[in-house]
Amino acid sequence: MTREECEALDAVDPLAGFRKEFTLPEGVIYLDGNSLGALPAGTPARVREVVEAEWGRELIRSWNDAGWFEQPYRLGRRIAPLIGAGPEEVVVCDTTSVNLFKLLTAALRLRPGRRTVLGDGAAFPTDLYIAEGVTGLFEGARSVLLPSVTTEELERHLGEDVAAVVLSHVDYRTGELLDMAAITEQVQRAGALMIWDVCHSVGALPVELGACGADLAVGCTYKYLNGGPGSPAFLYVAERHQAAAEQPLSGWFGHARPFAFEPGYAPTAGVGRFMTSSPSLLGQAALGASLDVWERADLRAVRAKSLALTDLFISLVEPLGLEVATPLEHARRGSQVALRHPDGYPVVQALIERGVIGDFRAPDLMRFGFTPLYLSHTEVWDAARELAQVLESGEWRAPRFSRRGAVT
Amino acid sequence: MTREECEALDAVDPLAGFRKEFTLPEGVIYLDGNSLGALPAGTPARVREVVEAEWGRELIRSWNDAGWFEQPYRLGRRIAPLIGAGPEEVVVCDTTSVNLFKLLTAALRLRPGRRTVLGDGAAFPTDLYIAEGVTGLFEGARSVLLPSVTTEELERHLGEDVAAVVLSHVDYRTGELLDMAAITEQVQRAGALMIWDVCHSVGALPVELGACGADLAVGCTYKYLNGGPGSPAFLYVAERHQAAAEQPLSGWFGHARPFAFEPGYAPTAGVGRFMTSSPSLLGQAALGASLDVWERADLRAVRAKSLALTDLFISLVEPLGLEVATPLEHARRGSQVALRHPDGYPVVQALIERGVIGDFRAPDLMRFGFTPLYLSHTEVWDAARELAQVLESGEWRAPRFSRRGAVT
Repeated sequence: MTREECEALDAVDPLAGFRKEFTLPEGVIYLDGNSLGALPAGTPARVREVVEAEWGRELIRSWNDAGWFEQPYRLGRRIAPLIGAGPEEVVVCDTTSVNLFKLLTAALRLRPGRRTVLGDGAAFPTDLYIAEGVTGLFEGARSVLLPSVTTEELERHLGEDVAAVVLSHVDYRTGELLDMAAITEQVQRAGALMIWDVCHSVGALPVELGACGADLAVGCTYKYLNGGPGSPAFLYVAERHQAAAEQPLSGWFGHARPFAFEPGYAPTAGVGRFMTSSPSLLGQAALGASLDVWERADLRAVRAKSLALTDLFISLVEPLGLEVATPLEHARRGSQVALRHPDGYPVVQALIERGVIGDFRAPDLMRFGFTPLYLSHTEVWDAARELAQVLESGEWRAPRFSRRGAVT
Repeated sequence: MTREECEALDAVDPLAGFRKEFTLPEGVIYLDGNSLGALPAGTPARVREVVEAEWGRELIRSWNDAGWFEQPYRLGRRIAPLIGAGPEEVVVCDTTSVNLFKLLTAALRLRPGRRTVLGDGAAFPTDLYIAEGVTGLFEGARSVLLPSVTTEELERHLGEDVAAVVLSHVDYRTGELLDMAAITEQVQRAGALMIWDVCHSVGALPVELGACGADLAVGCTYKYLNGGPGSPAFLYVAERHQAAAEQPLSGWFGHARPFAFEPGYAPTAGVGRFMTSSPSLLGQAALGASLDVWERADLRAVRAKSLALTDLFISLVEPLGLEVATPLEHARRGSQVALRHPDGYPVVQALIERGVIGDFRAPDLMRFGFTPLYLSHTEVWDAARELAQVLESGEWRAPRFSRRGAVT
């Protein structure tokens, strides 16, 4: 494909109008929105309003008058359509790790005779560490890691002791997309609960937690959702589990009557019982501004463009002789492309110096995320050309590129 | 004391210069800084910088270049002098409730033969709910509430099964200040660990966790510290406990090598092992701006003025015939004054309509917080006059004041 053909595709791109809703620096092609999404143009004003008007001028009155109390629910209802959830199945609070802790503990309690939690050994490690932390609290419980996530491995491990399975919908390294419906069904057939981590799929493609019958899920909002650095996470609890689900981070925000100041804990009805403390209002404000954009985005168009962009990038870099670690089948691909290179770290650094921002994951993966709301086909074409030039020139061998830093 | 005498005190107030470092609305006397502190004048610019420059322009690079990774430690080191802690004993992360969960779990593990957690039945309930949540995870453990926090009651309950005692340094309702040194000593003599909740004392008076030999502590930053609504909390772990302390919210940010992406959890050395996830950068930015102010404040002067302001308010409202629920002895008083009134709720609402913002806690407490950095003696005098006028006029009986809202 030529650059002109890319320009022609951009000219008819139904999502092209979203580009102006983001503030991106000049001279940068940003292929790391799978790690930290770009700044929506409306976010600074919304954050300023919360800081200067709601906090600075209205002060404590904003808890009622600006709806601060309701914010975790309101944001949850706005995220729900992005993950195929019902409006009363999602709440925004805390972080992905903290929320996974709550859900896993609840899952072990919902399956009292069972004591094993299955995870993916290649998952983003915080999920594994949290599973370790949770199982360490239950007598005889253990966290077991699958060597790979296949139907066969799952079958081998899905014994009668498995209480829950935690899997990432999209692999953070390779970008592999799992079959949510089939795996959920397989796990539930074995009597276990299925917990999805949708950090790398929410906002990248239509996630269908409800249609797939998922039990529980967590996700973050600072990647494809563009909520900002360290923005609050969300959790999903299928309505059928809400009445029986209990979690031990039982702070006052999850209480049935938080302002009665009763000495004993009584969880509120619904997903709100998974809240713990008062929300981070600045983080929630930024998330609200980014959801204003998402409200107008058609997820099917997002998915179609995501596949077009990753297809384009793969076709352009394949001639460079790099191994593509990302599945080529559309049904198994998220919205990123991972390329193997033994010197991936300095190559990525050299690319960044040229204004193409991707990232690196040890031992040899260069990761490039494709965010359909603010990336054009032409930018993808330019990024591939820059990568080709970095490799051809050998400029990545310059000593300044090998000093290690690290980004999430 | 006359209003003129108050003006004279303001003229020689060594902290008077701090008033201009806060943005407060015209026509408001803000006596609720014990619930949500006022907006520091430097905060909007700092938040804007993080949103527009660090996030918007530098994007993912800010994790390294803007020091985002180090932020939880850096803020912890800046809070340390405010609570009498060493620079490597504090970290800023999550919320008070989540942090208390971590510390209580660690405490039960540090005292393996013991299974009772003692709390104060009159504490802000989230601490009690969290104690319930934690003890529910340990076979045979229980959370016991003291009917009152006295030497005698503590002695009666400090049996050999007590692993930890959790107490608020200052009572959120009455403003009573506990004797941190004496209680810590009494608790430790019984072999238990002492966990202080300093939410209502940090920034209100010099807190001396180290000198008092405290084991563990939590606190929030949105009250006297002015970190903003839902700003991140902190936790303190005395250096002597850090190597052995373990907590189950073992996310990747507490890992010894977070970027090695190892499948197994290994806690980092030091207080960092109590971190869980990547920090909320917007909330941390606002906190950083407020600590710029605190860095220049002399805590002894803060304490002296706090006592002068609460003395003044008490002396002015005593003639109104209201019961003062706050201790009159300086050594037992925090930085708020609580007054009992059977119709406290509408009285506070009527006061708010007059521009004097306090709050109400059931069943009958009107709370007024005194923040020495931005309150003058004259404002306290004016607030007391408004309260007198509300009570004398009976205007609080108007139906519009009795509709219930609720503020934290």
